[in-house]
Amino acid sequence: MNANLRRSITLVFLFLAATVNLRLAAKSPAENAAEAIKKTDRQWAEAAVAKDLDKSVSFCGLDAAILPPNAPAAEGQAAIRNWFQSTFNIPSFKLIWHATSAEAAKSGELGYSTGKYELSFTDPSGKQVSDHGKYVTVWKKQADGNWKVARDIFNSDVSTSP
Amino acid sequence: MNANLRRSITLVFLFLAATVNLRLAAKSPAENAAEAIKKTDRQWAEAAVAKDLDKSVSFCGLDAAILPPNAPAAEGQAAIRNWFQSTFNIPSFKLIWHATSAEAAKSGELGYSTGKYELSFTDPSGKQVSDHGKYVTVWKKQADGNWKVARDIFNSDVSTSP
Repeated sequence: MNANLRRSITLVFLFLAATVNLRLAAKSPAENAAEAIKKTDRQWAEAAVAKDLDKSVSFCGLDAAILPPNAPAAEGQAAIRNWFQSTFNIPSFKLIWHATSAEAAKSGELGYSTGKYELSFTDPSGKQVSDHGKYVTVWKKQADGNWKVARDIFNSDVSTSP
Repeated sequence: MNANLRRSITLVFLFLAATVNLRLAAKSPAENAAEAIKKTDRQWAEAAVAKDLDKSVSFCGLDAAILPPNAPAAEGQAAIRNWFQSTFNIPSFKLIWHATSAEAAKSGELGYSTGKYELSFTDPSGKQVSDHGKYVTVWKKQADGNWKVARDIFNSDVSTSP
């Protein structure tokens, strides 16, 4: 192999590597938004695991609603604060969730995450209760670039039939 | 009032009326999409009320999931068909829902509806059961312009505590 051929092969290789790199870096607004939603979803879950009331509420938009099972909707930040507070107050309450996927609009300001949760607590009779289920969270990008919850709804996978 | 003045006033009036009309007609892509979502949500509810299995399934995208309470997710059209079929088979099953609001992205291809449902059925012991609750449905506009369900999740407002 002569020097010219070697140089040509090297140049072709570098060109291909650069093209692949460029393609990997060039994400669409929808892909970037979906990634940001997944990241924010994770940060919200961390705030809830830490039972940080202020931080947990701060992820919710002013017109947000949390729609818990077997309870009325918590609409607006005051109701959402009450809901988080009463949830965090449940004896030995543990909740963790993670998004399995997220998707956003082409315009990059509206999207949703969906995933799984696991929770456990001690009920009033002293019995340890555990539950697992699924959720959908609708997210809206705010003027400041932060993503906030618009709607959050979840339910159990566990049958109530005896 | 002379004829010229009368004509001028008429022209100004016509101009204002046309401007108002134009402003009323000029809805944003997000507003148009939200209206289309609400309309499709209503048509889907009508198909479910009629227990039309094929039509009920047809509103769901190929990668859709229905996330019912106290049951695993029904992912994909085959599982969704089974879920609708087993639901429609419940004795005296009646389900109705209506969207209270809908919102869509600026790009007009992704959005969600949220609202209330009421259902009733006869349980295996012969007892009449009724329930009401809330839901969130994520909708995606298809290449043919139709809106289809991406995710549908709901839960009861009724407490399970005695």
